[in-house]
Amino acid sequence: MKTSSIQKLARKCRQAAPVVATLSADSKNKILTDMATLLRNSQTEIIRANAKDIKEADKKKLVPAMKDRLLLNAKRIEEMARGLEEVAGLPDPVGQVVKNYTRPNRLHVERVRIPLGVVGVIYESRPNVTVDAAGLCFKSGNAVILRGGSEALHSNKMLGALLQKALKSNNVPPHIITVVPTSDRKTLSTLLTLSKEIDVLIPRGGEGLMKFMEENSKIPVIKHDKGVCNLFVDESADQAKALAIIENAKVSRPGVCNALENLLVHEKIAPEFLPKLSNHLVPKNVELRGDRAAKKMIPHIKLATERDWSTEYLDLVLSVKVVKNLDEAILFIRKYGSNHTESILTQTEANATRFVRELDSSCVMVNASTRFNDGGQLGLGAEIGISTTKLHAYGPMGLEELTTTKFVVRGEGQIRT
Amino acid sequence: MKTSSIQKLARKCRQAAPVVATLSADSKNKILTDMATLLRNSQTEIIRANAKDIKEADKKKLVPAMKDRLLLNAKRIEEMARGLEEVAGLPDPVGQVVKNYTRPNRLHVERVRIPLGVVGVIYESRPNVTVDAAGLCFKSGNAVILRGGSEALHSNKMLGALLQKALKSNNVPPHIITVVPTSDRKTLSTLLTLSKEIDVLIPRGGEGLMKFMEENSKIPVIKHDKGVCNLFVDESADQAKALAIIENAKVSRPGVCNALENLLVHEKIAPEFLPKLSNHLVPKNVELRGDRAAKKMIPHIKLATERDWSTEYLDLVLSVKVVKNLDEAILFIRKYGSNHTESILTQTEANATRFVRELDSSCVMVNASTRFNDGGQLGLGAEIGISTTKLHAYGPMGLEELTTTKFVVRGEGQIRT
Repeated sequence: MKTSSIQKLARKCRQAAPVVATLSADSKNKILTDMATLLRNSQTEIIRANAKDIKEADKKKLVPAMKDRLLLNAKRIEEMARGLEEVAGLPDPVGQVVKNYTRPNRLHVERVRIPLGVVGVIYESRPNVTVDAAGLCFKSGNAVILRGGSEALHSNKMLGALLQKALKSNNVPPHIITVVPTSDRKTLSTLLTLSKEIDVLIPRGGEGLMKFMEENSKIPVIKHDKGVCNLFVDESADQAKALAIIENAKVSRPGVCNALENLLVHEKIAPEFLPKLSNHLVPKNVELRGDRAAKKMIPHIKLATERDWSTEYLDLVLSVKVVKNLDEAILFIRKYGSNHTESILTQTEANATRFVRELDSSCVMVNASTRFNDGGQLGLGAEIGISTTKLHAYGPMGLEELTTTKFVVRGEGQIRT
Repeated sequence: MKTSSIQKLARKCRQAAPVVATLSADSKNKILTDMATLLRNSQTEIIRANAKDIKEADKKKLVPAMKDRLLLNAKRIEEMARGLEEVAGLPDPVGQVVKNYTRPNRLHVERVRIPLGVVGVIYESRPNVTVDAAGLCFKSGNAVILRGGSEALHSNKMLGALLQKALKSNNVPPHIITVVPTSDRKTLSTLLTLSKEIDVLIPRGGEGLMKFMEENSKIPVIKHDKGVCNLFVDESADQAKALAIIENAKVSRPGVCNALENLLVHEKIAPEFLPKLSNHLVPKNVELRGDRAAKKMIPHIKLATERDWSTEYLDLVLSVKVVKNLDEAILFIRKYGSNHTESILTQTEANATRFVRELDSSCVMVNASTRFNDGGQLGLGAEIGISTTKLHAYGPMGLEELTTTKFVVRGEGQIRT
């Protein structure tokens, strides 16, 4: 795509942004519901467009897991439609007064939530992100530019066209939701320079994408980076609960960012706990890799390499390390973790407090599965992803996190002396 | 400075960051007070170091205004010391629980304020920024890397050494406050690539610096950009108050970012108001520049050029435009403003509401001087500057805005089903 064309596209999106910023909650909810209906009624067209992507995936011999992520069927279309309706049901963050006070000179100050403006979402294969991200950005009053992966281009264009159709039929400028109609790297590179048109970029994807964004973006980026999640089983942990939590954190959905990757076990209980762990997880097809101490206690496992400790497996593999105490656990997590999710299992309140205080990951837990670091689970309603950037929003990003605040000041003629 | 040296410096700062992040409020306040005392007791050394900068400024024939910004004397040293004491008196944002709720599965969720980590502050001539920014970052639990302008290098190094001395005498790693000991562009360029060591950059300075940051930074940037502030005098405005407010906004301190640059006047009152305005401001040495309509009503003024409307004069110059109505005023501000501060003077509540709702600048005011967009004036206690980036913090940035929040989740063995 030509530089001038993508710029023109982004400019139209920017020009339309004030319209969505000032739409009433009722209008937005009505349009979201219309979008859902239109998706349901357009099942045939969506599946036809998706079939083109699937055909090309077959040609390129994509692995089954990748192909599955691409696929849209009746069930998945229904899920997207229901997602839009759920977002319609969430409170509108725009216009919310976050703080509100009167100064000694009687100036009245409010901090009021406003949209960020134009949000760029950069993502990979799953086409449902087009609809999910568009819905969240729209409800939070933002215009959005969506740039998905090349594998899903036909699906994304069709979904974008349907969302725009719902906007048009409600007399709202369609450019509020703009799907970039190509997905070459050159178009992405151009997009990353459009700092006048785009306020923030949200990349969702692998390490390669994150690095590319960091290297090339002239626009602020909220990274949704990998999750190298850690869990520490303290000396005083309830070991039966520990087994259940570790199984849940590792096995329930190994391919997601809040799945467990590194398990740290206090040396006092390791000789007793590790064999139990192995008996519990090996039948569940979990491959354990351990440091020397762990391997002594469960000799059948592989020795972990230095690289294992910072790897997000996205698979049924778990690295296990025996640590001397809480201090070593904290230092290990600071060194190898990715600031995503950490959990301590303990019955020692002082240790829980230190763990929670001394680690600054986006979500720090006590006696719970890492899988709870999720917008829905933590009560945000829905999420556009989990930010690993401390700036602006850290952890799950829901509707509020897609806004900022401005100061609104009302006086009766005050001047500054 | 060698790339490896600046990297080493930044790495030491990063390593020390967890220490300042977990210091108690009492420790931080004690150290801030020690710093203030040390500054007062080191007046001679500070003035001696500053004299070197002043001597070089003379050699380079810096204009008097620039030289004045550089100067440190007893009064200014006292101001810096008092600034640190004021910051010691402000509430500690670290550890504050912003939200707090229990989920249906009895997981208890808190959103807790934590420091950003390592903050890089990039600034120009004024050496007091070294102390002010260091104090605010320290109190908010952040480590800080300070990179001032070359003109103030001797002063900045001396101030940095004194702040570090106070840290050391309290057994805290001195690298928490790191002054970069050179100020060439190459060192700055290197600094902007250290995304592993620095979490956020706050540049304070002119357009050139902002552009350089945007072009070159691999680290998220919170811009403190220029203020092209606008004020609209509506048809129903109290004209006597309007004259006082405009004078205050333009004349009280023309060199700051919240000073007024563009005045918009409703066409219905312009023939009456503009001559009054001219009579009021010309004796105060304000140069007016106007559009054709304004020039018809006050013929002695210069015609404004297209460029004037987006210029931050930092001087006693005011651009004046006659507008048809509120709509034209809003469109003008969206086009030419810099998202900093806008004010409407009106007695029509509906117009005030629209102005406040439809403009998304960092501070939008009704019947008040633009000069109130300031951390102290708006009750934030102190400010590191005024952000014009919507991301993270928009408008004045105080201690809270130098933090982020993490999720703290406490359970009794919950797993995700």
